[in-house]
Parts: sequence; structure tokens; C-alpha cells
Amino acid sequence: MEYKLAKRTENIASSEVREILKIAQNPEVISFAGGMPPAELFPHLEFSQIAADILKSGVESLQYAPTEGYLPLRRWIAERMDKKWGIRRFTSSNILITGGSQAGLDLTSKLFLNIGDCVMCEEPTYLTAINAFRIQEAEFVNMPCDDQGVITDGLEELIRARKPKMIYVIPVHQNPSGRTWSLERCKKFMEIVTRCEVPVVEDCAYFEINFNSQCHCSLSAFDPKGLVLSLGSFSKVLAPGLRVAWISCSEYLCKKLAILKQVADLQTPYLNQMIIHGYVQKYDFDKHVADICRTYKERCELMIEELKKGLPKGVSFSHPDGGMFIWIHLPEFVKVRELLNVCMAGKEINGEKKKVAFVTGAPFYAYDAQANHVRLNFSNSTFERISDGIKVFCSALKEAIADYYGDAKENASGGVMRCGA
Amino acid sequence: MEYKLAKRTENIASSEVREILKIAQNPEVISFAGGMPPAELFPHLEFSQIAADILKSGVESLQYAPTEGYLPLRRWIAERMDKKWGIRRFTSSNILITGGSQAGLDLTSKLFLNIGDCVMCEEPTYLTAINAFRIQEAEFVNMPCDDQGVITDGLEELIRARKPKMIYVIPVHQNPSGRTWSLERCKKFMEIVTRCEVPVVEDCAYFEINFNSQCHCSLSAFDPKGLVLSLGSFSKVLAPGLRVAWISCSEYLCKKLAILKQVADLQTPYLNQMIIHGYVQKYDFDKHVADICRTYKERCELMIEELKKGLPKGVSFSHPDGGMFIWIHLPEFVKVRELLNVCMAGKEINGEKKKVAFVTGAPFYAYDAQANHVRLNFSNSTFERISDGIKVFCSALKEAIADYYGDAKENASGGVMRCGA
Repeated sequence: MEYKLAKRTENIASSEVREILKIAQNPEVISFAGGMPPAELFPHLEFSQIAADILKSGVESLQYAPTEGYLPLRRWIAERMDKKWGIRRFTSSNILITGGSQAGLDLTSKLFLNIGDCVMCEEPTYLTAINAFRIQEAEFVNMPCDDQGVITDGLEELIRARKPKMIYVIPVHQNPSGRTWSLERCKKFMEIVTRCEVPVVEDCAYFEINFNSQCHCSLSAFDPKGLVLSLGSFSKVLAPGLRVAWISCSEYLCKKLAILKQVADLQTPYLNQMIIHGYVQKYDFDKHVADICRTYKERCELMIEELKKGLPKGVSFSHPDGGMFIWIHLPEFVKVRELLNVCMAGKEINGEKKKVAFVTGAPFYAYDAQANHVRLNFSNSTFERISDGIKVFCSALKEAIADYYGDAKENASGGVMRCGA
Repeated sequence: MEYKLAKRTENIASSEVREILKIAQNPEVISFAGGMPPAELFPHLEFSQIAADILKSGVESLQYAPTEGYLPLRRWIAERMDKKWGIRRFTSSNILITGGSQAGLDLTSKLFLNIGDCVMCEEPTYLTAINAFRIQEAEFVNMPCDDQGVITDGLEELIRARKPKMIYVIPVHQNPSGRTWSLERCKKFMEIVTRCEVPVVEDCAYFEINFNSQCHCSLSAFDPKGLVLSLGSFSKVLAPGLRVAWISCSEYLCKKLAILKQVADLQTPYLNQMIIHGYVQKYDFDKHVADICRTYKERCELMIEELKKGLPKGVSFSHPDGGMFIWIHLPEFVKVRELLNVCMAGKEINGEKKKVAFVTGAPFYAYDAQANHVRLNFSNSTFERISDGIKVFCSALKEAIADYYGDAKENASGGVMRCGA
């Protein structure tokens, strides 16, 4: 039986993240692949009590309920964004609860994108966001970036030439690069998009995962025309399995998104929203977030230390001050997929075979993939596994480089090529 | 600020169901509008214990998890469909868990529909399914129906002429008409779609809500080519607020849908899936379903009795043997929207003002709406409210008819028009 499927199904034939999650489920493998928070930090005992109380005391969590979400949670989110994200004008009417940020990407794509419409993204950017735009059959334009964020010189000309229907950015602790935009760059960027009147979807999944005491501003703080839609999430600060996230935006767009959400899934489960609201009411959420950040920071620092010790010269990597990932820039001749295969096959460390998984860089590019990158997750591994895993990774990489020079020597009769900086 | 939105947002500018849910939330109003199960039947105390145990004993329910769904629940669903739905060939690989059936409609639409593709539906059909197809900018073709289901005479010619990309049907206790297809009609229909090789999305939301002892067959039971995608749901048999439903179909389509689901929402919350699995493992699910059916049947019978007593002559209505709705066929001259306004304004019953809400028929037609219908929900009202509410409805309808005859008399100088049969 040959089915006639919609054209969009051809655009996302394979799925890197699905492979990642399958790899990550095998406890034998040291996985730096997925973007998973460490399960040992989930407040599951608190949730157990809260869920039991909600369900014992009534049936509100089990009935059909308004699409926009659980009002007390929407109010709490609006207040937090006002206080901690520098926005100072949001109420519950600006907040739509979604089934994870991925559902927010689905809804915002549906809101703006016709077939062939242009989306502008950072280069590189979050791979499953690329897929969300691909199934709307969007066209992509990459925005060049430096370590301060999207490069604003020439951006207005690019926007006027390519007329994007929306821009997608991750200004804080970007996935995969770990980059955070400078405040100055945020303001310049918003001046330009405000002049050009382009909607901006700002992904704030890692917004509160900060290793230093600094807070960040949402782009909404510099948005006089209501162009910014921010995607916030409880996945990284409480638990991803509950699938509760939100979109904050102008009331007008919020209403439009609610109509689209009703057609997509009617509503996000109230039980899950009420569990989260119960937690932030009864417990010290700021302390919980601080505990997460401390753990991540320690793991990140260890990974950086091990990378410094083990990486061959000329291999650079990001030093994030938040989020979950380190982004490694390899010499261009390294075949990253082969490197992954070697790491997955395993290497002996202290007399024991250790297998390591990571994500290759190519899927993080909508087009013109730079294949010589690796994304390493540090949040979901113990010290021991980070230490062992990075040793495997560095050893495999050194071999790949040595092999190349060996081959190069043979092919070039003794000439030695220099490793790309 | 004028936003440039995607074209699809124009297709679903207003939303009838959103209005319905808002009306239904006001306890003053006797609501026959929504399709809500009665909250007093939700097993919330059992859920409370199950949820507490799941969360106390571990963190599996809180971490990212495979898109396809919780394997033990997928296995249980496959077994139940084999045993109770007459399918006899499904395994967990044929089951994809979705966030409610609405998410199943979103995914199946994405799987099959390009812009302008044709969808064939029963006339009338479920209004939010129409919206799910509309946001893919589909074209609609209605299939004429009688009390045995879709009329199969001429169906093959219609399919070959209009080349639908998919067919959407609700063969058991249809929403809104209450109709259940005869077994013979199911088989004839499947013979035709098998010859024409058209995928069929079969909505089974009310499949287990039977007032008599009969079981029903899924169209999958007559599907040698793997063309049927069945949407099953726990919303009507356990609790809609948990948002757990499923799609069953061929393994090939199941894999394609899982890729689309990953882009739509990554996964359905595992806690919710584990609560349902815990319930069907620990409690007598068949007894629970039988209790629901008995309650619905009693309410349905009372509503039919009150309608028989109160409706003016010439007004016909369905006598469902399952599901949640009675479908009323009014004389064509009755202005249904005005009738709703009168009912919402309220009428005095036994010295007290009672307000009544229902859904008008027009939104259940993809096009060529027959405006002279009303859908009444009986599942979510007590005996007293059904009795009072139907008195209000019948009294308002009698007035509307009397007014019309009064007007008709005036306009036609004494001539009396007959009420449509």
C-alpha cells in the first residue's frame, strides 16, 4: 500500500532528536547527547503530595477547561516575567499555556507562516525549531552571529531584502552555541525589528539557568509595538515530563494563538498546570532554581576542565555562563559522524569500556550546515561520567586528527597540514 | 500594529466551542451545550492515590520520554482494541499516544493534507474536526447520510470524481447526530474505500458509551490495506482533563505520525499516561464504563421523555443508543440563534427563572449549513436540570412557532403555513 502523504512529511523524513532520546535511554552509554535535566533534581516527593491533594479535594483538574490555561498559573507567570524578566506590563491576558515549548513553536509557526514564507534564524539554531518551521514549508535565512548575538550591522538591509514573516531567536544561553546576547545587542536588534515590524519568536527555555548572579531581560522589555512572542517553559526549572510551558505576547496575538491551540489540542492538562502552581505557591521556587543552577555550573566547570586537559591544540569550545550545552568547534577535516561512531563503540578508561554519545552539529543549521561542530550536554551526567566521557571523546578526537595527519602525510608525501584554528 | 498572519488564521476566525465552554462554566445556566462528561463520575480519589504512588516511587513520569507514548499503556490499548473493538491484529507498534483526540485530528491532518486537498465528511460532522481540516486549508465534500450511516450508493463515483486525500467519519454514536452505522454499511463503505485506496480517519470518541449491551466494530476490522486511522480517547470513559488519547493505524503511518508529533509537542505527559495505566491495572475499568453508560442512559431517557411531552408537533429528534447528544430537527422557519437567545435570557419554571444553553446546528456543517438543528447534551446535567431545561427549551420553541404563525397570518392575511415535518 503506497500512501499519498502531504508534502510536509518529506521535509522531516528523519529525526535526530528521536535517535538522541533512544541513545540516552541506554544506561550503558554516557550520554552528552540529549538536553535532559538531571532527574535527581525533580521535586517528585513534593509533586506527589501536591498531586494527591489536588485530586483528593476535587475534580477541577480532570474536567475540560479553558484553552488559555489555569488562571492562577497564568497570573503567577505574568508576575514573574514582570519582576524577573524586566517586562513590567504583562497580565494573565498576555499568557497562553502550551504543552511544552515545542507546542509553542508549532502554534507560532501556524500563526505566521504560509508556504514559502521566510523565517530568519540564528546560525546555528535549535534543531527541532527548524523542523517546526519546515513542516510549514518555510524558507530559511540565517542571520550571522558573533559572541554578542545576532550581528546587527546589515540586518535591516537583510530584513528589507528577504521580508521574513517571523524571526526566531534564543538570546539567552543559546542551544546549541551557549551564547547569550549582550544587552546592547538586544536593544539594537529590537530597534531594527521595530522599524521593520517583523514578529520575533524568542525562545526562553534556558532563561533562568544562570551560573552567575546576573538576570536577563526578555526582548519584550524593548518592544513598543508588541512584536515579541516569548516562549517560556517549566521543563528546565521543574520537570519536562509535565509538559507545561507558555507563550507571552500581545493580547491580540494571545487570542489568535488560543484559537489555533483549541484546534491543535483543546487545552493543556489542568492537573499538570495545578501541580506546578501548587509547587510555586508552597515551596521556594527561587531556591529550587538556584540549586539547579549550582549543580549545572559544577558539571559545566568540570566538563570545561576536562576538555582543557584533553583536547588537542586548535580545538575551541564555548564557555557558557548558563544553559545546558558546550559547543565545540573542530578542525574542518574531522569527520564528526565517524567520530561519533568511534565514541559510541567505546574506549577503555581505567580498565573499563566506556561508550559516549553526543550530537553532531549539522542538524542545527537550517541550510549550509557547518559539519565540524559537536554539542555536548553537561546537565545530565555525574562528575564521574563527565570525567570518563570527556576522556573517551578527547582520545577519539586525537586519534581522528592523528589518522588525518597520517593519511595526509601519505597523500602529500611527507607534507604536514596544520590543524584549523 | 497590524500583524501579517498566515492565511489559515482567517479560516477559523471565531470559535463556537470556546463560547460553549465559557457558557458551561456559569453554574446558573443549565448547559446542554458542551460535550462534557459529568465530573461526579471521575474516579478522582483513585487517581489521587495512583498519582501519589507514581510520583513517590520515582521520576520516570517527570523526565523526557519517547514520543510514541508509555509502552505499557500502548500495549493495553492494543489488547483492548483487539478484544473489544474486533480488530485482532494490533500490537503496541500500531498505537501512538496523543494529547487528546483533538491532537490526533491535528496530526492526521498534517499527515495527509496539502492546501486545497479534498476531505470528505459526514453531513453534519464534528465541528472542531472541521476546524482542524480548515487550518490546513482543505476543501470539503459532504457525504450524504441516512440512519444507517454514510450512503454507499454513488459513493465510489463521488470519490473517483473528487479524489479526497482523506475521509473523516464518526461511525459510532456520531457527534452531533447520534447516529451509529449499521454493520452492513461499515462493510460496504470499507469495500469502496479499499478499492479507491483512500485513508479513513475514524473518530471513536464515543465508542464505548453504549446504552445497550451491543459492542461495535472499528472500521479497522474490515481494512485489508491499512487505510484506517482510528482515534480513541480516555476523555469520555475516564477524564478529559488528563488529555490522553491515541491513534491506531498501520505501523508505517504510526511512524510517520510519531515524527509529526515530535515536531508538534515532543510527547504527551507520562504522568497522565501512567495514571490511566495505573487505573486500568488496579481497578475494574469495564465496571466503570458500565456505570458511566448507565448514568448517561438514564439522563438520555429522561431528556427524550421530556422532549416527547413538551415539543410541538412536527419537531423530530434522534433517539441515540449511546454517546452524549440528542440532535433536534426544527421547522425551517425557526430562527435557531434567536431561540438560543431566548433560552439564554431564561424563562420561569416553577416560580424560578431558568436559563438554558445549547449549540446551534450550523457549525457542524463544513458548508451548506442546515441552520434548523439544535444539539443537546444530556450527559452533564442532573435529572432536575434536564427536566427544567427541556421545559424552557420547549416553551421557547413553542413561542417561536406561534410568533411565526402570528407573523405569517399578518403577512398572508389569514393564511396559515404548515410547520415543516
